[in-house]
Amino acid sequence: MKHALSEAALPRGFRFAATACGLKKTGALDLAIFTSEVPASAAAVFTQNLVVAPPVLVSKSNLLVSKGRMRGVVINAGNANCATGEQGRAAAERTASEAAKHVTCKPHELFVCSTGVIGVPLAVDKILRRLPQLARQQRPSARSFAELSLAICTTDTRPKTASASFKMAGKRVHMVGCAKGAGMIHPNMATTLAFVATDANIAPGLLQKMLRDVTTRTFNSITIDGDTSTNDTLLVLANGQAGAPAIQAGTKAHREFAAALEDICHSLALQIVADGEGAQRVIEIEVRGAKTEGSAKQIAQTIATSPLVKTAFAGGDPNWGRVFAAAGRSGVKFDPHRTDITMAGIHVLSRGKPLDFNERAASNRLLAPHVHIVMDLHEGRAVARYWTCDFTAEYVRINASYRT
Amino acid sequence: MKHALSEAALPRGFRFAATACGLKKTGALDLAIFTSEVPASAAAVFTQNLVVAPPVLVSKSNLLVSKGRMRGVVINAGNANCATGEQGRAAAERTASEAAKHVTCKPHELFVCSTGVIGVPLAVDKILRRLPQLARQQRPSARSFAELSLAICTTDTRPKTASASFKMAGKRVHMVGCAKGAGMIHPNMATTLAFVATDANIAPGLLQKMLRDVTTRTFNSITIDGDTSTNDTLLVLANGQAGAPAIQAGTKAHREFAAALEDICHSLALQIVADGEGAQRVIEIEVRGAKTEGSAKQIAQTIATSPLVKTAFAGGDPNWGRVFAAAGRSGVKFDPHRTDITMAGIHVLSRGKPLDFNERAASNRLLAPHVHIVMDLHEGRAVARYWTCDFTAEYVRINASYRT
Repeated sequence: MKHALSEAALPRGFRFAATACGLKKTGALDLAIFTSEVPASAAAVFTQNLVVAPPVLVSKSNLLVSKGRMRGVVINAGNANCATGEQGRAAAERTASEAAKHVTCKPHELFVCSTGVIGVPLAVDKILRRLPQLARQQRPSARSFAELSLAICTTDTRPKTASASFKMAGKRVHMVGCAKGAGMIHPNMATTLAFVATDANIAPGLLQKMLRDVTTRTFNSITIDGDTSTNDTLLVLANGQAGAPAIQAGTKAHREFAAALEDICHSLALQIVADGEGAQRVIEIEVRGAKTEGSAKQIAQTIATSPLVKTAFAGGDPNWGRVFAAAGRSGVKFDPHRTDITMAGIHVLSRGKPLDFNERAASNRLLAPHVHIVMDLHEGRAVARYWTCDFTAEYVRINASYRT
Repeated sequence: MKHALSEAALPRGFRFAATACGLKKTGALDLAIFTSEVPASAAAVFTQNLVVAPPVLVSKSNLLVSKGRMRGVVINAGNANCATGEQGRAAAERTASEAAKHVTCKPHELFVCSTGVIGVPLAVDKILRRLPQLARQQRPSARSFAELSLAICTTDTRPKTASASFKMAGKRVHMVGCAKGAGMIHPNMATTLAFVATDANIAPGLLQKMLRDVTTRTFNSITIDGDTSTNDTLLVLANGQAGAPAIQAGTKAHREFAAALEDICHSLALQIVADGEGAQRVIEIEVRGAKTEGSAKQIAQTIATSPLVKTAFAGGDPNWGRVFAAAGRSGVKFDPHRTDITMAGIHVLSRGKPLDFNERAASNRLLAPHVHIVMDLHEGRAVARYWTCDFTAEYVRINASYRT
């Protein structure tokens, strides 16, 4: 598991490129493409927000038409192309069809992703003008991949990448991923945008099943502000170019592939939380001893989205009462008299009764970059984890004037 | 409808008192009592948080035992007496039984309310020591009522009071209310603490029914931070001392009483939102044209609790895309292509299509102290309104170090 990617970490048969087409006012990289040399098995999960951006609709439709065999994706940042009416749909379709000419594939073999401000018409001409050059610039290089991971950023303070590999039949299989997102982050799904490329050989159906499963425990278990994006897309392309045989369900290779995919998604998801707008620290909320995983997750999510809990963490305040109160309003039935709470290793509540603890020592531990909170309900054996960040004045500063 | 209360606004037969017993470190007023000279019809709604404070449990039980005929309430601020175990329950019961001696009533004829920090043992001796003097100090005066309304405050920057009156059979019936709350404010129910006293003559059952109904449209339609308190209590005492006949269901007096109660609850609820921690303005979210009132309220509530929406309002940013996106994740099915949005009177979205508008003019209007947002779904005739405040850096400052 490495975050700084070297050339050797890249999967075979993928090429990447990014450029500045003028959608970001600062002149930063804002348009990117990556493609597989050959058709790749593809899987994707998308936002479940009812207000859904045209590029998501076009990507969903293309994945269906191409029966899970795709060539690549075109991504722009700086404009979400959302709530942009029929023009917005046409812009997304035009982007795919123009890019397809230069990639020499069919339009429906490309995903299209957009991220940025909602409700502003997309200046699609800026994208179309740069597509020929962008397609030519594609390289199978770590530098190109790094440029792509930067081009997709919006309010992110740093790019987010991860890689993994495993051996199969004497061949090394590689997997890399990148993601963006620092605000409007909340499950279903929570990524804004994330891309994984691998040279594994795997059927689209098996890949899709694994991706859904992994997403539940990674991207769908993080929150920054409780708001779901209209453009969330997480997609995986697997082109088989490592030369290893096809991965079959239930085999060791299947488990290793799933572990690699989960490693990457977990790493990217936590990098998003750590880079949450204005965030100083990642808080891991673990709910144990629940009757079901669903109820454990519901409690963990309620705690993770509570503004009072998140602001207390901004100040390193061991205010476990807010954690307890948030659990109480989660909608899950449990007996508060059986509940234990541990904050950063300090036991503060035992069977519903408060314990004495050293406030100053607790506060110091809560100022760490990664804080672990455990709530044990003592009612069953189910566990769920959820990751959130603290809520700072800087978050407000960033979001009070995002468009202006 | 007046906010600054005069002696003439007070209902007959009620007396009020407040003192500083040392629960607030600053030495401010923190203990209050008010009682009716005669047993009064009582109605109450309480928090639905599963983590519920002992005073709420004691108050619920007392209301039941006394069959809706109560004499008054003892309130402390500075400590919520919540998550305090068996000691906490004993402290609440002891407060009622000791106070009853000095009021010369039964312990179960008194409500007990606490508000403040969670999880810190209540120094009940400080309360008990002051009860004899507090009971003696009770006066039927506007000044005593004003002191009570101050004593119940925690992070509030100002007290919240309201009054109403109507005529019935030649007698003027009076009603006054006060409330506290600036944080941990969210429905079910949303008040933290609110008290209404009236000299109307009305049966407990009819009063309880009306109170539930009014709460739905007032205290349960506001939010500051989405967090539900463990101590929320709204209660009404009606002692019949105006000398008017008993109010019967379905009569003009019934409607006038309901209107007065709703006026007071609406005013107090909006005063709470306006005094939201760090808040600069009240935002009224109105969802029209929904299929059901429930779905309209669900959308309005989702918009009202979105940190991205609330931070945009802090900066006067007409970022309607965030309003639209929040509606989309509310869980209510609607067709985004039929949606209209108006912000502070400016039409920004028509049938799902963005409209051109003057950004600067819109921003100026959004900086007003009361901002009205209307979303019309064009799918039915149901309407709901929800009130929230903007989310500022000051909110974070207040809550990052609440206990320390």
